[in-house]
Amino acid sequence: MANSKPDQPHKITKREFLEAFAVVGGVSGVISALNGWDMGIASAAEAPPNLMGNPNGTKVLILGAGLAGMTSAYELGLRGYNCQIIEARAFAGGRCQSSRAGFKTTTVDGETRTCDFDEGQYFNHGPWRLPSFHHAVFHYIRKFGVPMEAMIQENDLGYLQFDKAGGPLAGRRVRKREIKADMRGYTSELLAKLTDQGALDEQLTNRDREKLTDYLIREGFLDANDLSYKGTIHRGQSEFNPMGTSIASKAIALKEILQSGLGNTFQGVTTIDHPATMFQPVGGMDQIARGFERAVGDAITFNAEVQELRQDENGVSITYRNNVTGEVSVQKADYCITTLPLGILSKLQTDLSDRCKEAMDAPRKMTVGKLSLQMNRRFWEEDDQIYGGSSTRGIPGHTVIYPSYGFCGKKGIVQSAYTFGRAAVVHGELSMAQKIKQAVNRSEPIHPGQFRKHYDGKAFSIDWHLTRYSEAGWSAWSPADRQKHMSILREPQGRVYFAGDHVSGLPGWQVGAIESAWAQIEKLHARSMKG
Amino acid sequence: MANSKPDQPHKITKREFLEAFAVVGGVSGVISALNGWDMGIASAAEAPPNLMGNPNGTKVLILGAGLAGMTSAYELGLRGYNCQIIEARAFAGGRCQSSRAGFKTTTVDGETRTCDFDEGQYFNHGPWRLPSFHHAVFHYIRKFGVPMEAMIQENDLGYLQFDKAGGPLAGRRVRKREIKADMRGYTSELLAKLTDQGALDEQLTNRDREKLTDYLIREGFLDANDLSYKGTIHRGQSEFNPMGTSIASKAIALKEILQSGLGNTFQGVTTIDHPATMFQPVGGMDQIARGFERAVGDAITFNAEVQELRQDENGVSITYRNNVTGEVSVQKADYCITTLPLGILSKLQTDLSDRCKEAMDAPRKMTVGKLSLQMNRRFWEEDDQIYGGSSTRGIPGHTVIYPSYGFCGKKGIVQSAYTFGRAAVVHGELSMAQKIKQAVNRSEPIHPGQFRKHYDGKAFSIDWHLTRYSEAGWSAWSPADRQKHMSILREPQGRVYFAGDHVSGLPGWQVGAIESAWAQIEKLHARSMKG
Repeated sequence: MANSKPDQPHKITKREFLEAFAVVGGVSGVISALNGWDMGIASAAEAPPNLMGNPNGTKVLILGAGLAGMTSAYELGLRGYNCQIIEARAFAGGRCQSSRAGFKTTTVDGETRTCDFDEGQYFNHGPWRLPSFHHAVFHYIRKFGVPMEAMIQENDLGYLQFDKAGGPLAGRRVRKREIKADMRGYTSELLAKLTDQGALDEQLTNRDREKLTDYLIREGFLDANDLSYKGTIHRGQSEFNPMGTSIASKAIALKEILQSGLGNTFQGVTTIDHPATMFQPVGGMDQIARGFERAVGDAITFNAEVQELRQDENGVSITYRNNVTGEVSVQKADYCITTLPLGILSKLQTDLSDRCKEAMDAPRKMTVGKLSLQMNRRFWEEDDQIYGGSSTRGIPGHTVIYPSYGFCGKKGIVQSAYTFGRAAVVHGELSMAQKIKQAVNRSEPIHPGQFRKHYDGKAFSIDWHLTRYSEAGWSAWSPADRQKHMSILREPQGRVYFAGDHVSGLPGWQVGAIESAWAQIEKLHARSMKG
Repeated sequence: MANSKPDQPHKITKREFLEAFAVVGGVSGVISALNGWDMGIASAAEAPPNLMGNPNGTKVLILGAGLAGMTSAYELGLRGYNCQIIEARAFAGGRCQSSRAGFKTTTVDGETRTCDFDEGQYFNHGPWRLPSFHHAVFHYIRKFGVPMEAMIQENDLGYLQFDKAGGPLAGRRVRKREIKADMRGYTSELLAKLTDQGALDEQLTNRDREKLTDYLIREGFLDANDLSYKGTIHRGQSEFNPMGTSIASKAIALKEILQSGLGNTFQGVTTIDHPATMFQPVGGMDQIARGFERAVGDAITFNAEVQELRQDENGVSITYRNNVTGEVSVQKADYCITTLPLGILSKLQTDLSDRCKEAMDAPRKMTVGKLSLQMNRRFWEEDDQIYGGSSTRGIPGHTVIYPSYGFCGKKGIVQSAYTFGRAAVVHGELSMAQKIKQAVNRSEPIHPGQFRKHYDGKAFSIDWHLTRYSEAGWSAWSPADRQKHMSILREPQGRVYFAGDHVSGLPGWQVGAIESAWAQIEKLHARSMKG
């Protein structure tokens, strides 16, 4: 039996794996699962490299004013390098963006969408949550004084409503805590009773069995007299007695939860990359970009599309075109750090080697999409006491993620789609009206009578793989391709260095961008000092 | 075996029970445990009563400008009552206070302490966290536009360091997630293997056993091939491989965790009254009081100590003394709502009946103390990646609670004692210097080399049972006393109505104060309308 688990990653294809997780685990499951595919978890470096010596104004051209580019410019600038950043967009930050009134995004087809959310409402449509151990990001948050607040990743009050659930729970809306508490209760009961009946007599001493039973009683809220689980107030209350105390709602039968599969949406401890609480800048993730920009903004040339990257033994030469005026310019420097998405760089006129181009083309361009809707009443807070966290129906690409800011305010932005892989491709092909309709239809059963009613006609959507100057959510490396190609990209090609989350152990995370910059500027500086 | 659990509430005295929880469960355990003693959990009312009719300026004197008093004044004032509030303190809010630079508190002995924290630093030394379903509080938060943010109650990155733990874990510092993940892993393994060996063949169908095993594999991070728990990256990483991916730290042996008792600090779902995430006003809990004060501040007479409460068939008469000038005044009104702590009211000159006085004297005056220290570096964030939540050593009255605001700032306020019952009495008898010394000594092992070093000489402490005009943390009712006396206090005594958390199902919570006011003004209004 143990050899035939259908949802074990090493038994199935990556796509099946991701989709399975999307169904049972929601957003968090998908991302955690990605880490199983060698995307890395933790940041290894805690501080920028300590660069000694005087570079005497050595000039470095940096392609891209995302976090990797701005980190490079900031740290090298501190040491006396002359850094210039060439950025195709009209703003700094790369994918570190937040959509709010007036924010514009342009697709690869040249269609520009402008966000029309109300004043004070925003949505982090790029990176949106930071685990506390992403040292490199917190390093700059502290340095630039970016105000931070908690981002509620897991909220036990969120709903599960799975039409695909087996048995009587199909289509029934339950709070996450109901399933969590009941499964803990029943499994504790089963193990406590088997222990009591002697099943572990050979494995554990008397004393250890007693301690195990104590633990199970407490962890599972068991009745200490008969070791059975009879529900717990902590799964939710159903009514109040006249004294104001409350009566626990009724536990769902073990058989029913097992049949439903809803228990599989939980793990015994929240995953390290997605702990129950994560963090976000007050006012939007783009405040991190603004922090960097305050420090290095003067060095950025905006609206500058790189067209050619050339080098010889004396230096590099970058040709770029102003995407407003059409004017073409050339800049020369001693070195270049490119943070351009690999898929974009690979298409430019460069004299990078074929081996290098093969490496740039190796990772999958991750298809990722998001949609969020402005609601004219925070019914999830007012009616359901849900502040942050998410609800899920187990539909790949669908999600309901509640805002972790502006609690108790009037309006709020609810994320209503988060798509990856094939689902993102399909989603990206829908019109805005179709996306909204689909999201509302899918979300309505979680908040019946509320979701459709309170959508007030303002929505924002991004498809990163269709976004100009990104063309991917991030670079997804298979373990084999990472082994084969990453070392090429982590070493300079002549005078050209590669930085960006795509060459880090943590693609798709801001920490990866910063760490890659730290690694590359250390190499560049060592060489520059040698002369 | 199951009949001899030592830490089951119904087997031991209340004091033993609370102390046991303090050791194993920390702060959250204590408070959850209190609820087991009939202190109530959930709020029953979602909105204030709808009072119809015109009271034609009926005058109501309200004793106490805490949340119950201000709620009464606000709601009755909206309906045309003439409300005046008599408040002994120089500020409104009752126990809804935050200590910050300049804040003063006075003991029953007349000693006044002034808080000297740095600008921007504060500590919620009274109520400090709101669960999302405390409807009545959120009702006014919305009404008065009080900005809210998340308060991190549970943080798996917090430390356990128990000298009293049995076996090899005694004195060893571990992250909460290590114990949590390992215990889930091992218990899942035990049950999965017993299931595989046929132990549940009679209880569950083949299909249900398979589904149970699926659940256990996922919940406990088991190896699907042999159903064993081999640790998980989610309990923490120990090192990084060259590709930037991380290696899980080593699981602790089941025997060692059982011996230590540390597993007993967790439950399968966070308790309903203390979910993983709770909420707090931005800038301090007293912002709720300020919200009320903006609405009813004009009706408050400050520095007014009630001395006498008299009534006859026509009205009430309150004598009070200005505690600055000594001037004595008398006010008359049609009705009185008293929200004074029962222990204080009971000592005043009143014509309340002996039966009523017996009821007022029945609840225990909860002894509660807190101490917090200002640190000149947020080492728990910078070095340990702990943002909010708590660490514990299992010492009753001791705790380390990290601030859930000002993340990534330079300084921070760390709560270092939270005492109840006997421990609070002892703590209250210490001098400030002794309290600080004890807290630093007790906390140092959690952050060796940091806690003492970074304490920058500014501390604030409160002992609610020794605080003038409070004289208790709250009124703690035994189930028997609640049954016997509460109905007396929930009905008017002549023209005098009792409000305050002490007559609610939720003593010690702000929601109790507001709900009690809602209940009493409804009664008062019904009677007033009858004439």
